[in-house]
Amino acid sequence: MKKVSSPIVSRLPQYYHCVEELYQSNCVKVSSATLSDMLGFTASQIRQDFATFGGFGLQGYGYHVKTLRYEIREILGLNNRKTAILVGCGNLGQALLKNFDFEACGFFLLSAFDSDPEKIGSQVGPVHIMDVERLDQYMAAEKPAMAVLTVPRSVAPDMAEKLADLGVSAIWNFVGCDLHLEDRDVVVEQVSFADSLLTLSYRLSEKENDAE
Amino acid sequence: MKKVSSPIVSRLPQYYHCVEELYQSNCVKVSSATLSDMLGFTASQIRQDFATFGGFGLQGYGYHVKTLRYEIREILGLNNRKTAILVGCGNLGQALLKNFDFEACGFFLLSAFDSDPEKIGSQVGPVHIMDVERLDQYMAAEKPAMAVLTVPRSVAPDMAEKLADLGVSAIWNFVGCDLHLEDRDVVVEQVSFADSLLTLSYRLSEKENDAE
Repeated sequence: MKKVSSPIVSRLPQYYHCVEELYQSNCVKVSSATLSDMLGFTASQIRQDFATFGGFGLQGYGYHVKTLRYEIREILGLNNRKTAILVGCGNLGQALLKNFDFEACGFFLLSAFDSDPEKIGSQVGPVHIMDVERLDQYMAAEKPAMAVLTVPRSVAPDMAEKLADLGVSAIWNFVGCDLHLEDRDVVVEQVSFADSLLTLSYRLSEKENDAE
Repeated sequence: MKKVSSPIVSRLPQYYHCVEELYQSNCVKVSSATLSDMLGFTASQIRQDFATFGGFGLQGYGYHVKTLRYEIREILGLNNRKTAILVGCGNLGQALLKNFDFEACGFFLLSAFDSDPEKIGSQVGPVHIMDVERLDQYMAAEKPAMAVLTVPRSVAPDMAEKLADLGVSAIWNFVGCDLHLEDRDVVVEQVSFADSLLTLSYRLSEKENDAE
């Protein structure tokens, strides 16, 4: 598989949602023109992006939806389910446990951890909350690939380093600060609420300036 | 102000964090080369991006941090504080109320709304939760510019339409589904947990393929 540029990577989830929608509506084939209408990218951009991954279209036919779906799922790593744990069961952690569909994104959530005795042992969403003191032992036995990090900011860098030491391959970082794991062999994907709201603020100012 | 391409817009929050850090450490001037080291973009890219906004650098001197910060804050709309409300005080809404710094992103949070009698009247973070039945009246009086949408998915499109009818200029959408407000004059910025986790899944697969 070739190295893919980050703009293409950022379009992958949108391709996936779109093709999943076509697949769920029993659509058999789709042209790059139709994909362009659905996604707002140019047809040529879409053909170019797909070509980067080996191009699964046929000239004059378009794309076979089932194949396209399989290939995009393969690229995204969704055909092999990976295991995950969640660390930090405050409001945000609990929101994810209760409402977020990990399986649709290729992950099976094994367990969740917290240090609060009132939370330990209780069931939230599909899992029971375990004592974070048991994390070392649990990681050694279950070897989850990914950890969702929803601990308070003050303990986040230490917990991230501990998780790296215990062998996670990836951290989904909700903490809103840098985890300083650049030198570790760990994929870190950050959900930055602040960057999103700054973007909204920009777009709102732009709109107000246009209106003036 | 010129129209700015979306790749530049996506880099704006990173520019802001970086310049804010320089400003907080009392740094007076900075070159595009230093900004490049801090951000990982090329110096030429940075000069080009800043030129789009009117270019506030001086040949051979670099950028005056205080001016740069002011200009980036101006572009992001942070020099004029806007008002916001939050609708839906479940776990995710409460996590934002308790922990998220709205003011750092240019917003002042006025109030929060929910339909649960047990929540109405209680204080969460800096605000009291109000009865969502009072939303119409409140919006007419306070005219908040933005609404944070953290309601359950089942009621999200209706609530989004109601908020548009009541005059919000922007919605920060945490619901994880499309709000279908394309025909309305409302800026919608979506925080998509799924897209973030799909990207993580991609990067994790890529890493595993590289290791093979």
